[in-house]
Amino acid sequence: MKTVLAVGAHPDDLELGCAGTLALHSAKGDKVYLLILTRGEASGNPEVRERECRDSARILGATDIFIGGLHDTMIHDGRESIDVIEEILKKVQPDIVYAPSSKDTHQDHRHTGHAVLSACRRSRIILLYEGASTQRDFNPQVFVDIAKTFQAKLKATQVYGSQVGNGGMYAKAMKAIEGLAKFRGYQAGVDIAEAFEVGKFIFEI
Amino acid sequence: MKTVLAVGAHPDDLELGCAGTLALHSAKGDKVYLLILTRGEASGNPEVRERECRDSARILGATDIFIGGLHDTMIHDGRESIDVIEEILKKVQPDIVYAPSSKDTHQDHRHTGHAVLSACRRSRIILLYEGASTQRDFNPQVFVDIAKTFQAKLKATQVYGSQVGNGGMYAKAMKAIEGLAKFRGYQAGVDIAEAFEVGKFIFEI
Amino acid sequence: MKTVLAVGAHPDDLELGCAGTLALHSAKGDKVYLLILTRGEASGNPEVRERECRDSARILGATDIFIGGLHDTMIHDGRESIDVIEEILKKVQPDIVYAPSSKDTHQDHRHTGHAVLSACRRSRIILLYEGASTQRDFNPQVFVDIAKTFQAKLKATQVYGSQVGNGGMYAKAMKAIEGLAKFRGYQAGVDIAEAFEVGKFIFEI
Amino acid sequence: MKTVLAVGAHPDDLELGCAGTLALHSAKGDKVYLLILTRGEASGNPEVRERECRDSARILGATDIFIGGLHDTMIHDGRESIDVIEEILKKVQPDIVYAPSSKDTHQDHRHTGHAVLSACRRSRIILLYEGASTQRDFNPQVFVDIAKTFQAKLKATQVYGSQVGNGGMYAKAMKAIEGLAKFRGYQAGVDIAEAFEVGKFIFEI
Amino acid sequence: MKTVLAVGAHPDDLELGCAGTLALHSAKGDKVYLLILTRGEASGNPEVRERECRDSARILGATDIFIGGLHDTMIHDGRESIDVIEEILKKVQPDIVYAPSSKDTHQDHRHTGHAVLSACRRSRIILLYEGASTQRDFNPQVFVDIAKTFQAKLKATQVYGSQVGNGGMYAKAMKAIEGLAKFRGYQAGVDIAEAFEVGKFIFEI
Amino acid sequence: MKTVLAVGAHPDDLELGCAGTLALHSAKGDKVYLLILTRGEASGNPEVRERECRDSARILGATDIFIGGLHDTMIHDGRESIDVIEEILKKVQPDIVYAPSSKDTHQDHRHTGHAVLSACRRSRIILLYEGASTQRDFNPQVFVDIAKTFQAKLKATQVYGSQVGNGGMYAKAMKAIEGLAKFRGYQAGVDIAEAFEVGKFIFEI
Repeated sequence: MKTVLAVGAHPDDLELGCAGTLALHSAKGDKVYLLILTRGEASGNPEVRERECRDSARILGATDIFIGGLHDTMIHDGRESIDVIEEILKKVQPDIVYAPSSKDTHQDHRHTGHAVLSACRRSRIILLYEGASTQRDFNPQVFVDIAKTFQAKLKATQVYGSQVGNGGMYAKAMKAIEGLAKFRGYQAGVDIAEAFEVGKFIFEI
Repeated sequence: MKTVLAVGAHPDDLELGCAGTLALHSAKGDKVYLLILTRGEASGNPEVRERECRDSARILGATDIFIGGLHDTMIHDGRESIDVIEEILKKVQPDIVYAPSSKDTHQDHRHTGHAVLSACRRSRIILLYEGASTQRDFNPQVFVDIAKTFQAKLKATQVYGSQVGNGGMYAKAMKAIEGLAKFRGYQAGVDIAEAFEVGKFIFEI
Repeated sequence: MKTVLAVGAHPDDLELGCAGTLALHSAKGDKVYLLILTRGEASGNPEVRERECRDSARILGATDIFIGGLHDTMIHDGRESIDVIEEILKKVQPDIVYAPSSKDTHQDHRHTGHAVLSACRRSRIILLYEGASTQRDFNPQVFVDIAKTFQAKLKATQVYGSQVGNGGMYAKAMKAIEGLAKFRGYQAGVDIAEAFEVGKFIFEI
Repeated sequence: MKTVLAVGAHPDDLELGCAGTLALHSAKGDKVYLLILTRGEASGNPEVRERECRDSARILGATDIFIGGLHDTMIHDGRESIDVIEEILKKVQPDIVYAPSSKDTHQDHRHTGHAVLSACRRSRIILLYEGASTQRDFNPQVFVDIAKTFQAKLKATQVYGSQVGNGGMYAKAMKAIEGLAKFRGYQAGVDIAEAFEVGKFIFEI
Repeated sequence: MKTVLAVGAHPDDLELGCAGTLALHSAKGDKVYLLILTRGEASGNPEVRERECRDSARILGATDIFIGGLHDTMIHDGRESIDVIEEILKKVQPDIVYAPSSKDTHQDHRHTGHAVLSACRRSRIILLYEGASTQRDFNPQVFVDIAKTFQAKLKATQVYGSQVGNGGMYAKAMKAIEGLAKFRGYQAGVDIAEAFEVGKFIFEI
Repeated sequence: MKTVLAVGAHPDDLELGCAGTLALHSAKGDKVYLLILTRGEASGNPEVRERECRDSARILGATDIFIGGLHDTMIHDGRESIDVIEEILKKVQPDIVYAPSSKDTHQDHRHTGHAVLSACRRSRIILLYEGASTQRDFNPQVFVDIAKTFQAKLKATQVYGSQVGNGGMYAKAMKAIEGLAKFRGYQAGVDIAEAFEVGKFIFEI
């Protein structure tokens, strides 16, 4: 049994990139913790948004979810963000960390990615997921076959009622979610996959 | 009206990467020429394969198709390949050239990409398409919205009866063709797209 | 007729990288808007500098020029900069956006480049120009032949009396302006050119 | 129990990059197959060299070793090399493949790397090891802690009597073998490690 | 005789990456100045840490050492940092500048690297050293053979009593210092070396 | 006094990229050897071409020139090319080697670059110059101020009567030679420069 920590900047950041993988961890009996750095108040009512991501956490079988208390659109890659992440690291002691790739046009995602790499420099596996504003030079090396949990992934993304219908970036991403999963599956040589860049990977033989 | 030349190593190389774009050119009245460097004899009967790609050319509205006479799995990036391409360049005088990206695990695709860049060093627009064995560091910069010609693209890929059913790389690619088009569309901010790296691009203001 | 928006961090940032291209747009009848995020107060009298860039705008045939009200040497890539850009985006609704490449040793240019990519994630064409402190890994993919407007480009750079004579970076850049234009022309296979990295490019067939 | 295939161009190519990892596989009970494409006749008596690498295989606990029959310094990345590799693939059906990184100044290593990626496009894990002439842009993402098998690795490298004493590249590499293992360990956050670039990695949750 | 400036973010940043090179400069009669931007107060008593780095400076034969007065973990790449560096530049007028590579998981190192490149844009040689948290894509191009000063380097690192014993990143780095030096030496074709990325290098024939 | 070896694929390859630097070496009293791998028979009468490059060698003050006997457009990166280079290496024992960058659309230049890196793996300084068909991702790190020898460089390029007037790639490159030198000078912060990527650089303190 492994312990997993997935870090996102906003309530709906994890779903596109690694929800299928997180659901696989849960299904296998791993402990899955989520850390969401902000309540996403820049794109909706923070209470609604927090509730939505707690619903998603339940669908994915997460053990617990932490909300980091940083401010939406104002995450920096300095001390403050690193402290929030390190506090959870101490509590959870994860074997595997999932974090957003820093190759992203959204400053919160870039800075979250940097802050996780700083905070988790002692972790053994850090995998960087893609999101709705990831840049085109995201170049994944590691793939997870999510055929068994793709329905859970879809269901998790659909709880974001506040985002799905607003015509914004999230809505567009959701429209593409199946295409993305099939394309990443194709690159991996399976039907349907999630794809990750490697922050660090100690491979256990 | 523009003149377009699309170069492929094997009979079924163009369809995954740029068939939608070629069909758009045809629909708009551009002249579309195809140059297929080999008859694909390593993966089937060359006569069948040549017939299939002539069928595909018809579906895409191509003006003419040239078969280059090189040997499947033995394309090099030297003089011989460059000569074949330069001969067609002189005949066709294209405004835009489509060629395979050299970021590919298949040596024929790599070498074809290099040879086109050598031969076409005076062309004004060279766009590099992705294929069934393109590597993951393919990082497209230019996108074409192919919503209007996606059906033609699908139809063109289906003429390859000799490849579709054999469980090989082509069959897998075809299964992923819609996912790929939606993912590239998502990156471009449209519904469905083909994606290209830039060999060279003189932008006409 | 197209609508064009060019974004610069300081009053004299656009001229080196894209003045010839902007003048071409004007000559062709496109609407050209300039957004300068700061008044450049760190390198001279802000009133003089603003006047100079309004003179340059006139030479380039710009339709209008906006001054963003951010502080020279203190542009960040967060909310504040993005808001300034998004406000102009709504007003202008550009078809094409020009912005500084983030591969730059000057923090204002880096952050402006990031902020434009964040703000313009729905734009169809974003081209990234080079400037006086662009780093050597600027790797252009798109070129514009500016033979017809090179004189306008030179004239526009010469209005910056406050910068041309001070022996600083701008003066050095201006000394190299013809060499740069010829080198980029050479890369493009024309006499004289401006060169761009691609932020995003939806190619209209 | 996994099945592992490690491919090298010459008799002494595997030891520097992945001998510790191979010994770990053996120790754990995995089946380890070696494929050496040439007998290394350009740097010594081929019979001696073949004997040396069979000795090394024994030390590493390899199940079997295959010699590919290609010619030293003349390995190409085309059909001939791919066929040799595919034949062994069919026989062995590996879960994990180790191959040289193509970022190498030695043409045989470059071409072997390319050929393995072509041949193994259906494999689930391909890891690319470093060697005595790997270039400096080798940028590993995956690490294996080899504290338990470092002695076996050292012992395996020392069987190459024909190379160790000749003052050539191999002798230099051997002198650095401990430094390399500690540096890679340091990057990984362990004492001693081998490092790999990812050809492909399907991560089993 | 040359004048050299080495910039570090914290009291113990220079030793791992360039202490051997600095000691070589001193031994040859060059003037060596150190600029440490913070007193490292986030990892220990700032007075102790400052004293330690003054001890190290003495061992390396530095002419003088400047402490920049910025705040540990809060170095930015903007005006404030650049001003601190520019002030010392004017005083010292170095021929060669050593600075941390920006490819680092520690935000202070990243920002120091950027700030030095901004401040020193007129310097003729800027070499970027690696440190305890440098990322794996650090890709050195320039090497210095430090066989003659490796003992001084070791001695300099050992004055950091406050860091050596605390089990943290510094302690780990020190454990790997010989491995690193041998690995970089191996890449350079010498016994023991320090390695640098190039910020800028005007080569005097 | 240093010994320098400059390697080119064809008679006129060295002039654009490193003639100014070679003339500086000569002026300073260094021994400068040229190795031209082919007689350039694909672009003119080989006797004329050989004579032209001997004239150029004289202008640049070269000590001696070697013609390698390989075939124009058919240089490979394997044994044959490496042997030719290694033979001259043994004879000349250069301190510094100049070779074409492998980032080139011309296969002969690519393969020459690779072959030099293979052959010279023990050299202390290898600098890679740009040429008439170098690709846009050539990213120089080292610059030489050639203000004193630019006239010699121009004069050397003009001896290629067989190439200058034929409207081909060489003629175009020569037209851009001043722009290139000024642009590279601008990047280096001097008036006029040649620019190099680093194959390897042991920096003597």
